Amino acid sequence: VSAPAAVREPAWSPPHAAIGVGVLGATGYGGAELVRLLTTHPGAALLALGSRHQAGKPMARVWPSLPDLDLVLDDDPDDPGAWIDRGVAVVFSALPHGAFLARAAAFLDAGLRVVDLSSDFRLSTAEGVTYGLTEWCGTELDRARLVANPGCYATAVLLAILPAVTAGWWSGSPIIANALSGVSGAGRSPGLTTHFVECGNSAAPYRVGDEHAHLREIARALARVGQEGPVVFNPHLVPMARGILATVSIPLAAPVPLAAAQAHFATRYTGSAFVRVLDPGDLPETRHVRGSNRCDMALRLAAGGTVLLVFAAIDNLLKGAAGQAIQNWNRISGWPETTGLPVAGWSCA
Amino acid sequence: VSAPAAVREPAWSPPHAAIGVGVLGATGYGGAELVRLLTTHPGAALLALGSRHQAGKPMARVWPSLPDLDLVLDDDPDDPGAWIDRGVAVVFSALPHGAFLARAAAFLDAGLRVVDLSSDFRLSTAEGVTYGLTEWCGTELDRARLVANPGCYATAVLLAILPAVTAGWWSGSPIIANALSGVSGAGRSPGLTTHFVECGNSAAPYRVGDEHAHLREIARALARVGQEGPVVFNPHLVPMARGILATVSIPLAAPVPLAAAQAHFATRYTGSAFVRVLDPGDLPETRHVRGSNRCDMALRLAAGGTVLLVFAAIDNLLKGAAGQAIQNWNRISGWPETTGLPVAGWSCA
Amino acid sequence: VSAPAAVREPAWSPPHAAIGVGVLGATGYGGAELVRLLTTHPGAALLALGSRHQAGKPMARVWPSLPDLDLVLDDDPDDPGAWIDRGVAVVFSALPHGAFLARAAAFLDAGLRVVDLSSDFRLSTAEGVTYGLTEWCGTELDRARLVANPGCYATAVLLAILPAVTAGWWSGSPIIANALSGVSGAGRSPGLTTHFVECGNSAAPYRVGDEHAHLREIARALARVGQEGPVVFNPHLVPMARGILATVSIPLAAPVPLAAAQAHFATRYTGSAFVRVLDPGDLPETRHVRGSNRCDMALRLAAGGTVLLVFAAIDNLLKGAAGQAIQNWNRISGWPETTGLPVAGWSCA
Amino acid sequence: VSAPAAVREPAWSPPHAAIGVGVLGATGYGGAELVRLLTTHPGAALLALGSRHQAGKPMARVWPSLPDLDLVLDDDPDDPGAWIDRGVAVVFSALPHGAFLARAAAFLDAGLRVVDLSSDFRLSTAEGVTYGLTEWCGTELDRARLVANPGCYATAVLLAILPAVTAGWWSGSPIIANALSGVSGAGRSPGLTTHFVECGNSAAPYRVGDEHAHLREIARALARVGQEGPVVFNPHLVPMARGILATVSIPLAAPVPLAAAQAHFATRYTGSAFVRVLDPGDLPETRHVRGSNRCDMALRLAAGGTVLLVFAAIDNLLKGAAGQAIQNWNRISGWPETTGLPVAGWSCA
Repeated sequence: VSAPAAVREPAWSPPHAAIGVGVLGATGYGGAELVRLLTTHPGAALLALGSRHQAGKPMARVWPSLPDLDLVLDDDPDDPGAWIDRGVAVVFSALPHGAFLARAAAFLDAGLRVVDLSSDFRLSTAEGVTYGLTEWCGTELDRARLVANPGCYATAVLLAILPAVTAGWWSGSPIIANALSGVSGAGRSPGLTTHFVECGNSAAPYRVGDEHAHLREIARALARVGQEGPVVFNPHLVPMARGILATVSIPLAAPVPLAAAQAHFATRYTGSAFVRVLDPGDLPETRHVRGSNRCDMALRLAAGGTVLLVFAAIDNLLKGAAGQAIQNWNRISGWPETTGLPVAGWSCA
Repeated sequence: VSAPAAVREPAWSPPHAAIGVGVLGATGYGGAELVRLLTTHPGAALLALGSRHQAGKPMARVWPSLPDLDLVLDDDPDDPGAWIDRGVAVVFSALPHGAFLARAAAFLDAGLRVVDLSSDFRLSTAEGVTYGLTEWCGTELDRARLVANPGCYATAVLLAILPAVTAGWWSGSPIIANALSGVSGAGRSPGLTTHFVECGNSAAPYRVGDEHAHLREIARALARVGQEGPVVFNPHLVPMARGILATVSIPLAAPVPLAAAQAHFATRYTGSAFVRVLDPGDLPETRHVRGSNRCDMALRLAAGGTVLLVFAAIDNLLKGAAGQAIQNWNRISGWPETTGLPVAGWSCA
Repeated sequence: VSAPAAVREPAWSPPHAAIGVGVLGATGYGGAELVRLLTTHPGAALLALGSRHQAGKPMARVWPSLPDLDLVLDDDPDDPGAWIDRGVAVVFSALPHGAFLARAAAFLDAGLRVVDLSSDFRLSTAEGVTYGLTEWCGTELDRARLVANPGCYATAVLLAILPAVTAGWWSGSPIIANALSGVSGAGRSPGLTTHFVECGNSAAPYRVGDEHAHLREIARALARVGQEGPVVFNPHLVPMARGILATVSIPLAAPVPLAAAQAHFATRYTGSAFVRVLDPGDLPETRHVRGSNRCDMALRLAAGGTVLLVFAAIDNLLKGAAGQAIQNWNRISGWPETTGLPVAGWSCA
Repeated sequence: VSAPAAVREPAWSPPHAAIGVGVLGATGYGGAELVRLLTTHPGAALLALGSRHQAGKPMARVWPSLPDLDLVLDDDPDDPGAWIDRGVAVVFSALPHGAFLARAAAFLDAGLRVVDLSSDFRLSTAEGVTYGLTEWCGTELDRARLVANPGCYATAVLLAILPAVTAGWWSGSPIIANALSGVSGAGRSPGLTTHFVECGNSAAPYRVGDEHAHLREIARALARVGQEGPVVFNPHLVPMARGILATVSIPLAAPVPLAAAQAHFATRYTGSAFVRVLDPGDLPETRHVRGSNRCDMALRLAAGGTVLLVFAAIDNLLKGAAGQAIQNWNRISGWPETTGLPVAGWSCA
């Protein structure tokens, strides 16, 4: 090639030897995204996949979008021995809620590192368990043996409210957190709720008020930073495949100028490759983070300056699930946080 | 036909002579729905249609879904004389905001009854102008010469909050009204915002806080019932063709048991054919009111009983526009409120 | 109301006594559309509804879009006695394929008229059974005791090709009939195929070539008019709720000028309220027939005039199911063919 | 990290110095996908972007999905001098059809390599111009100064029919090529055709028969391999963001057993990383290639073995545009064909 060459920053190089990785519950949406991303992650050697219902089939048969993957699904193992023998050192679990709980001890005792995408350990206070909202984890994550990966809604809502409440701005009146989710958040098991003809052109609230499990996750995270108080959480299903948009109103104890709030949030997330505080006047949209591990957010004042509005958008399967799981693993492994993870989103989808 | 006959309630019969009707701005979504409904309304003789950009074309050419309509579009007239000569006695205006304002005097002075779907007169205090939120109009509507048909968002939000605030339940802390709209609410003029590839799989807030014009409508309606106070209004665009879902949180001055709130709402809307307070435990979804002039709503308590949540779903083009316009006209004309209007929605769409 | 009155054609008046109607399999999409349309049909008194899985529930609970319907679902009866006692004289069956077959004798022997929307009798040659492609039925329909309502694909394809093949234009080389269906065509039972996230943004062929049951229906209908020959049928699922678009290429035995073909089709369907042959240059789109019982079609010549292309669009739940069923019943009952059926489609959905 | 390491194949390493790349027309869907992919392409240093309408804006402002891109849009240059001074050696043009034609000489004379995604040079016979259907290019591509990147429809249809026609199987009777396209294929300029409410729940044929420009591309490609004959091409717009599904029927001169056809296609595409001939019984779906540069295809016999059906699915923006452009550039540059290009698709979108 005789074309003139341009100067370019050298890319980060992975360690000579990648780490052996296995995925439990690999055939759901979260699992399949884990597999897709780990396949091209320079530090990962994807060695084992598990599935309850599809064991024995090649993964590429269950997910024809992954044709170059040469792995056959195992029955999700209760005992990690066989996977360890194959070289697995890290396990991502995308099993349904409740399914990993009983397996955890065996996996941890065998010396595996675990990132669990279910809700099983999100409220846990056990030694070695870390709630993996990456941007708020600090050094605790480095010591984690099991990372409880946050729920998709909780991720968006907490990234939106933590800078404000840790600054002492919250009056203590109810925070109202409304959120919209794409249908992949409801999982891959068919039901009338996710039937195209039922949900495909409609909007529906569900488990509103204080009924959704993610509200307890949010409350727990607030308690961890010493902030307790009423939060109302209203999730809605809207007809998009991916994405969460959180619209949160925080009653303020005292006036905060918008520029100061904007500066505070921007400072808090400086250095966070995956959180972007938008310019004043802009608002996040889920299409801008689709396919990306980013959270975009924006601020507004309302009700005469007595309420701070925060809007946050994520891809529920990436920053809300598989992406944050890998981000947490990158941090644990000492690699650059963005390794194997897209900052850019898809132009359209 | 020899089949045995079943007893059946006789349907309402229209007057012998239908009333001549014209539609300004007939080619947008609201206009086209007016035309579709008026074509089969037993009390209407649809005689004239107007359009700024498509004048001279048959309506059935602009809207191939209406093939049996034998009307050519006029240039939207500034002077109603020619339409009156054709027999028009009532005019529905679906012109863009601002366009009917200058025409109004000529139309009213000529003795026409007008239902205006734009925002032009919604804040008006002029004699003979009525804000047409039908279920809250009372007898004032009977005397109306011009009905200012409410905005789609305002309709959903006001139907949701008025029973509570008129009962004195509101504490005066900010009401947070979030709402989701289908894309037809953005009108038929093409733009990047309504491009399928941009909005078709995404959720986006816009004109949030206090930026949307419908907030002034809501505030004005609250003032009319003697209730003033802060309201935060956050509209969002979601990828469905039709529908509005409002999720409103109302801070309570004192505890109200859910059963009492439920009973109060049900009583308030008793006799309203188009408002349905759902059974406890149910939540409205826009698919259930698609193609119907109904508003479905549901109640919840949250934040330890300090917040009343009201959820309301309407079809933005029907109860939020063309349907409510015809409902208002039915009331003015002394006909049954449901004449020519569907209570049932489409099974799917 | 002092408004001047306009002259208007008097509407058709129903018989004094409506006919008692029951619907089997009322909770699927076809059944629910039957119920919606029959509720406002001036000649029908809807008296009984059946369901296998939802018996005992009010229909308005299973279909919240139908709140004003005061009927509780029966277990789909094997014996029609109880329904006859309630006044049912006509039964529409929207049961799954195979389910009405065994019931038919009991229903017919009891003197009921039946319109069956399943495939069970579409190939039948039994006395009193009519294949109900309405525009091609002739007087045979008047004598029908059981109408086998055509399949949705077969309706679109046959309306498109019958004028050409009965004119002797077909060369006998394979007709290639490709078709696109909305997801409601796959029924309401949830499955991965109809999961929003799987089918919601994707296109997929299925049962192509000669695998789909509707091909046999098409072949049989061709045989009835003395035309046998190879037909290739390729159905595809595309992400819309309703609609079928058929794109058919017919090899010509000899050149036919486009104007002559256009005139022949228009003549053939003269007087058919529900078939519209579009102007030259126009093409049908499913959105234009959504919510309507119409079939829109258009013609083109291709391959140097050796191939006639016919494009046909219908609403799969109306002209392709519930609408045509009622159209057939209107014909049987001697009522105007359009009674209770929309010619106009929805402006948007 | 003390986790045990697994053996892993070393990834391909890019040359020390990446090649300087510029993109004309960078803000449309094809351009934005080029930018997204080139940003992480290990052999590319993306140095310059052009736009007619958005010049002066940061690309990350026009495409908020690309926040980490630090390039301001230039006015699409007529003269490449300034870009060459910045180090650009290769230009991808995603300008609208007709816009690059006049610029080409200046760009080529200045020594730049060009990949043009428009139709401007697809029928060209000029020296140094190659029609870049990669899998059928052979060594000609290595010498190309300008690659005319194929149209999206033409790519899917030609990959589907070339193995059959070059084997001498085509009878010469009309090939019927029907195809479905996602809406991004219609470009990013807003219009009623791409308005969500118009196209979002509907299917529509357009430019059917012999009206679409891609038909000439297909005919030209057939002529290049010595196969001329009638082809009917019927494109349709369906409501998905991305994807093309081609359904092609090829009349056979003599019977070909399905297994032989299957083997022949598989052999023809052996070694092609981006073409996958599916197992017998499977059919391609656009969701499986979404986000991937792959073409999935499948074969069937129909009409008693006289017709070969070929089904092919691609992502119109990748294998149908930006992906194939980069694939062509990889080949020209002597790099592995898959460099910077995804073989796997997104799990959902």
